[in-house]
Amino acid sequence: MKLATRRNGTRDGELIVVSRDNTRGVSASDIAPTMQAALDDWSTLSSKLIERFEALQSGSLEGEFPIDTAALESPLPRSYAWIDGSAYINHIVLVRKARGAAPPETLGTDPLVYQGGSDTFLGPRDDIPWGDASWGLDFESELAIITDDVPMGTKKEDAAKHIKLFMLVNDVSLRGLIPPELKKGFGFYVSKPSTAFGPFAITPDELGDSLSDGRVHLDMLTDYKEEWYGNPDAGPEMHFSFHDLVQHCSQTRKLGAGTIIGSGTVSNVDRSRGSSCLAEKRMIEKIDTGEFKTPFMVPGDTVRIRMMKGDANLFGTIQQKVVSAT
Amino acid sequence: MKLATRRNGTRDGELIVVSRDNTRGVSASDIAPTMQAALDDWSTLSSKLIERFEALQSGSLEGEFPIDTAALESPLPRSYAWIDGSAYINHIVLVRKARGAAPPETLGTDPLVYQGGSDTFLGPRDDIPWGDASWGLDFESELAIITDDVPMGTKKEDAAKHIKLFMLVNDVSLRGLIPPELKKGFGFYVSKPSTAFGPFAITPDELGDSLSDGRVHLDMLTDYKEEWYGNPDAGPEMHFSFHDLVQHCSQTRKLGAGTIIGSGTVSNVDRSRGSSCLAEKRMIEKIDTGEFKTPFMVPGDTVRIRMMKGDANLFGTIQQKVVSAT
Repeated sequence: MKLATRRNGTRDGELIVVSRDNTRGVSASDIAPTMQAALDDWSTLSSKLIERFEALQSGSLEGEFPIDTAALESPLPRSYAWIDGSAYINHIVLVRKARGAAPPETLGTDPLVYQGGSDTFLGPRDDIPWGDASWGLDFESELAIITDDVPMGTKKEDAAKHIKLFMLVNDVSLRGLIPPELKKGFGFYVSKPSTAFGPFAITPDELGDSLSDGRVHLDMLTDYKEEWYGNPDAGPEMHFSFHDLVQHCSQTRKLGAGTIIGSGTVSNVDRSRGSSCLAEKRMIEKIDTGEFKTPFMVPGDTVRIRMMKGDANLFGTIQQKVVSAT
Repeated sequence: MKLATRRNGTRDGELIVVSRDNTRGVSASDIAPTMQAALDDWSTLSSKLIERFEALQSGSLEGEFPIDTAALESPLPRSYAWIDGSAYINHIVLVRKARGAAPPETLGTDPLVYQGGSDTFLGPRDDIPWGDASWGLDFESELAIITDDVPMGTKKEDAAKHIKLFMLVNDVSLRGLIPPELKKGFGFYVSKPSTAFGPFAITPDELGDSLSDGRVHLDMLTDYKEEWYGNPDAGPEMHFSFHDLVQHCSQTRKLGAGTIIGSGTVSNVDRSRGSSCLAEKRMIEKIDTGEFKTPFMVPGDTVRIRMMKGDANLFGTIQQKVVSAT
């Protein structure tokens, strides 16, 4: 099943069901007014949403409309929790090298996560605000899950049943602000501004055999400034799976329905796969030539992120432009 | 005006208005069903809520009921953003010394904040779950504000108008898990479990002349195991005011209505004022005697937090007990 949120002038938008080919939608607001409301009562409501999705797949429905991604919010326009992991070791090693920091000693055994701002997400077509060049604006192409209520102390073996939806993410990052902020010891805050999500949230069954062991074995496709930038496989090099991340995040407290957990920037050791952020490419340049060459994003730059399964654009496309905030 | 949230079997509870003496309440769900709904549309709804509050102050209202704090949630049972500052320099210096870490170089010029989990708050009378002794369970007595929508780049001079409510906080902390987690470089996550808030959220005017320059000049009263533990003044030693914190938190993104920003543990240099967490007392013991003496919290321990203005218990009382989670 595919779900999305249509702008309707409210903070949380209107829940809609979307056809598998991303072309047609129909309101689901009679089942649940918003995506959060659906997640709050998923065990009761999801079967009704699936029924509507199947009806939409079978033929035209009264009130259906053509999908216009510009009219969509992120599936959750705001959420109660956005916890981003960093599960691709290649990304951690390269990015830490880029800022002259050592990888943590527990790199392979203890997942890295940070709690991101979840009160003001960007939509899949929203502009990315740019303050000034010192920000070092960068994108990060990622996957994320949305959970239901996860009890404290959930083990990875029990994690799959709590994963209700998958999403695509642009975890916007301000590389210039990260080193001084992390030096203070409390993690990211100003260096991680509002995050954007792909237009469609999909149930795990839509991934078919591409989903195994809590990993999605498909390429993460990023175009930067209208040109190919990367297509790393999101599967094999995800050192900590989404199951591991659920276990990690629920160690000392329960998680509320609608919690979003991100994979971290998708990254492969094979350089021919390109990258999913500018920081990695810059570090590779530095290793090879002694200097950073690729600049960070400036107003006018565009980024496009998507994930294909055969001909199907699973999550729709994140397509954003950087604009000056002043 | 005083507002609270009454348990009603839903995730967000029922918004109620509370008399200034904390004894009587009346539903406000016809004005806004929940606290978040009130904050989402504060400019329209707050005058209606104030009208109800004034009517309740003037005499008895149809449908009013006696307040039973055990029937109340935290004012926001979950929120879209919980950003906790650490604005009392004395606390930072002592706690960092306790874990053998240096204070940040920018201690006096750049506020420290972390993004806390906001999907599952504890109520003012809820038990605090305890995993095992390695957690090093501690309380932290703090103040917090709730904002409306704060534009990106808001300056401290414009911050006051965005502060709609004040609250009392117990920022539960797991001291045993903090050093290894912070060593990874991404800040707190598992070491900061669910936070609890005082029963009543109050508008700034309720603080009267105790509120000046974005600081609350009243004592933070903490009892631990049914005995006095501390009464530091929350005002003069708050190095960064709530206005500074609003400016800091909105540097690179806007903040959504209902954002909670915390002061950090209230702390005074004057030792006769006691402390607002166990970690500080332990560090003072270590400095004076060479060893930590006070153990961290264990099942059965209680903590009580409140703030008085004369005879008035402004926020009601946080009163929690530690219980084994297993």
